[in-house]
Order: sequence, then C-alpha cells, then structure tokens
Amino acid sequence: MRDFSANHDWLSINTATIRKQAGAEVPLARIIDQCAAQGIPAISPWRDQVHAAGLDATARQLKAHGIGLSGYCRGGFYTGADAAARSAALDDNRRAIDEAKTLGAPCLVLVVGALPGALEGRAQYKDIGRARNEVRDGIAASLEYAKSVGMPLAIEPLHPMQAADRACVNTLEHALDLCDELDAGRSGALGVALDIYHVWWDPKLQQQIARAGRERLLAYHVCDWLTPTRDLLSDRGMMGDGVVELRKIRGWVEAAGFAGYSEVEIFSNLDWWQRSGEATLAVCIDRHRQVV
Amino acid sequence: MRDFSANHDWLSINTATIRKQAGAEVPLARIIDQCAAQGIPAISPWRDQVHAAGLDATARQLKAHGIGLSGYCRGGFYTGADAAARSAALDDNRRAIDEAKTLGAPCLVLVVGALPGALEGRAQYKDIGRARNEVRDGIAASLEYAKSVGMPLAIEPLHPMQAADRACVNTLEHALDLCDELDAGRSGALGVALDIYHVWWDPKLQQQIARAGRERLLAYHVCDWLTPTRDLLSDRGMMGDGVVELRKIRGWVEAAGFAGYSEVEIFSNLDWWQRSGEATLAVCIDRHRQVV
Repeated sequence: MRDFSANHDWLSINTATIRKQAGAEVPLARIIDQCAAQGIPAISPWRDQVHAAGLDATARQLKAHGIGLSGYCRGGFYTGADAAARSAALDDNRRAIDEAKTLGAPCLVLVVGALPGALEGRAQYKDIGRARNEVRDGIAASLEYAKSVGMPLAIEPLHPMQAADRACVNTLEHALDLCDELDAGRSGALGVALDIYHVWWDPKLQQQIARAGRERLLAYHVCDWLTPTRDLLSDRGMMGDGVVELRKIRGWVEAAGFAGYSEVEIFSNLDWWQRSGEATLAVCIDRHRQVV
Repeated sequence: MRDFSANHDWLSINTATIRKQAGAEVPLARIIDQCAAQGIPAISPWRDQVHAAGLDATARQLKAHGIGLSGYCRGGFYTGADAAARSAALDDNRRAIDEAKTLGAPCLVLVVGALPGALEGRAQYKDIGRARNEVRDGIAASLEYAKSVGMPLAIEPLHPMQAADRACVNTLEHALDLCDELDAGRSGALGVALDIYHVWWDPKLQQQIARAGRERLLAYHVCDWLTPTRDLLSDRGMMGDGVVELRKIRGWVEAAGFAGYSEVEIFSNLDWWQRSGEATLAVCIDRHRQVV
C-alpha cells in the first residue's frame, strides 16, 4: 500500500469540494489557480463549471499549471419517460465524452440517473426496474461512442438514499454486473468510480472490490460519513471527521491493483462550503497525508 | 395475492405512526383506543410507550378491544465498546422477549445496532466488521433464550443511511445470511421484518424475498419514499405519496408465502405527526385499501 504521509503526489481535488467558498460560488479558473498554488497535481472538474469557464480555456489553464485530471464529472442521467428524452440524454453524453477527451481526462464519471422527474419531486414513473433497463441501454449506447474515441466510462454507484432521484445503480455489485454484461472482455473501456461515501456501509465491499480488479477500478473518491448526517446530499465530512475506515478501504482498492489518485469530493453546505478555498485545500492536504 | 380493497382486516398500525399528534406525544392507551374506534385489528407498539403505560395494563387493554399484535418494537442494539455494555444489551433483550410474550406478539423486531456511540455523534470505534460480529453473537445469545420461551426474533435490515448509528445489517441478503448461519433449519425462531422503506431500492429484493420464504418473513412494514426526503430518520411518506411500488413488492412477499398484516410505520415529524391521530388513521385505512 502506498505511503501518502510524505507528500500529496496522489491527491486530486474534485472541484465540487471548493465550488462554494465562504458561501458563494467560485469560478473554475480561480479554483484551478488555488489548487496550483498548493501544488495539487490533479483535479476532477464538473461540466457546468467547465462550460461557464470555456472548454478550451480550461484545457489551456490546466496545461499551463501542469495539472492533470482524475476524472470528469459527469455523464449519465440516461432515464426518460419517453424516447425523445432518452435520445437527448445520449446526445448529451456524446458531448460529455468529447469534452473529457479535450481535457485529457482518464475517464468520464457516470451518475446514471434514476426515476425521471424525481429530482424535481415529480417522478414520471415508479418502476425502478424500468429505470435500470434504460440505464443499461444508455450505457451500452454511450460505450460504443466512448470506445471509438478512447474515453473510458466509470459507473459511479450512488448511496441507496439517492436511488429515487439520482442513480438507480446503488451497489458496487450492481455496477460490476453491468460492466460484465456490457464489457465482458474487461477491455478497460468500462469500469467504476468508487466513492467511499456511497459504498462504505456495504458488507460485500471488500469482496466486490477484489472482483472489480485493476481493469474496472477507474477512479477512487474519498470524504467521510458524519454522525449525525443532516442532509441527504450536502453534508459530507472531511476525511477523518466521520466513521469510515479510510485506510482499510484504500488497502482493499490498492490490493486489487488501483494505483491512481485519491480524489477528495465533499459536498458540504453547512461547513466546508462556508470556509475559504485555501483553508479547505490545506486541510484536504493534511488529511490526505494523515488518514487517507 | 390478497385483495385489500374491501376492508382493512390485514392492516396493522405501528404506534410510532401516531405517537405524536398535532406535534405532541400521545400516551399508548389513547393510541389503542383510537385504533379500536376505527376497527383496526392489530398494532405494533414500542417498548418505551409500553413501559410508560404499564405492561399488564397494556395487555389487558388490547385484550378488551380484541386487538392483536403484528410485532413488538424493539430489541437489538447489541454492539458495545466493552463486554459490560454488550452484556447489558443481552439482559435488556431478555426483558424485551418477556414483554413480547406477555403481549402475545408474533415476533420481537430487532434493530440490531451499529457503531456504539454513533447515535450520540461519538462513535466509540469505526470497525463496522466488528459491529457485525457483535451483532451476530448478540442475536445468537438472544435466540437461545427466545427459543426457550417461544418468541420468534425478526431482524430488520435498516436503510444503509442508518448503517453507522442504528443498524449495521442493511440488506435483506445480509439479514438472511445471518438467519442461515444461526438457524440453518429454518425453524421459524429467526427471520426478518421487511420494511419497504429500508429495502425498496435493492436490485436483489425480489430474489431475496423468494429466498426468505414463509419461515423467514415474520413481519411486513409499509410507508413510502418521498422525493425529496428532507431528513434521514423522520420524513417517511404515507403509502401512495412516494415512489415505492407497493403492490408489486407485496406481490413478491405474498408469493413467498407471507400472509400476515401489512403494518404501517411512518415517522414524519414534518407532516403526519402534526395532524390528528384520527385523521392519520383514516388515511392509513384508505391507502391500505387503495394502494398497498
């Protein structure tokens, strides 16, 4: 298992972690400058931030700083109540794949979608089995295009508490079943983004990480699970402040062959998004060395 | 599949559903009278309410009304940072088993416990594997006593969002693995309480319900999953107001041989606990007939 204590060579910052600073949205260009100032070698930016900053300008800025990507957030949301909605989702995923390619991302992270409309509180249907079929078909279609341009797709299983509105793939086992169905040859074109926030509770986690192996483990995200958790989306904890056994899980992931970045992704409306970006990054670096 | 549309002969009310009315705690004796007034044939009371009302007085009142039990809530919380804490938990579970027997409950529902102290925001250890071992050992010890007095134990898998603080058994598959380990002969002494709120999202739900079978399905709880869900504990929805496919899941449960009560258990600080008990019960009856 790699020793992270001496430096932060394997730290990546998901830009959502400092997308709000002192309660206000911060543009991506500033976030990248802040990461560069603290010697952070990689980030994972979000599409909406990249669109606002400009795709080419972002690519140039990253290159100028020598900052790489650990992933690109995010494609997915494949489900739809009708064929037109599902077709629009496929078009959008093609654009996301192209953007990931322009930015030099190692993978496009997929939040696959769930019951259409549920995120707005008006589910258009309740059949989660149907949603799962639409997700499988959507990934299959994206995969064809992604392979043609050489952009791996990483299915991110989300916590079951987000099964209705964000992603109906909620366990690593389910994500790997999809990988096996759609990429039986383990080509490297399809795998998973493993975020400990979503999967830490799973009694089959160690077994399924071993099953995933190097070819399927495309990204590794960390934060922590707080007790109490006050919000289903935006109350994630800083590594070390919650109950997740971070080092044990990284041990499993590395034993399976993963040797990439440890990406910090913290949504925290009540705490970290109220602080300065510099302060949050400094704590991320410290915790990366001490507890991740 | 049984037809519920003509009456509410198979409706049970978990007393938590109306433990608060118009925002205030209501004593169990009044809750029982309210259920009797609307012809509800069964309830599942909570221990703290029974202790406050008196065990024998509650047993007499239920008998006078001809109201049965669909379960008794609840035993469990087996984990502890030291042997003294775990031993105290076993003592308490013996008392819960005796109370369930006095009340004529068909099973004692087990919320098994998780990281000790996490419910108070101060987890005494983080090793969820250790917690799971302590739970297995605790259930094994309780089972011996429960068998001797003839009280079935029903493990309730809780939603993964409650894995840290309330129960580290979070899937039906895990609960059934425990049943197979501790009661290989499917004697009926150990099974599960299946609450759709906790398990509706599980891609293996249908498969595992079939695996459970009649001997393991000791209780069936219903409510609904709201979008958005505003609180991790107390924002459950009334049946029909959320996204769960209630009738489909009941079909699976009945196909596996379950023929007992459909028990309504709604924690709802923001909505139903603000209404009158009579109004809430009337809606429970209506939804039981229309959508459960």
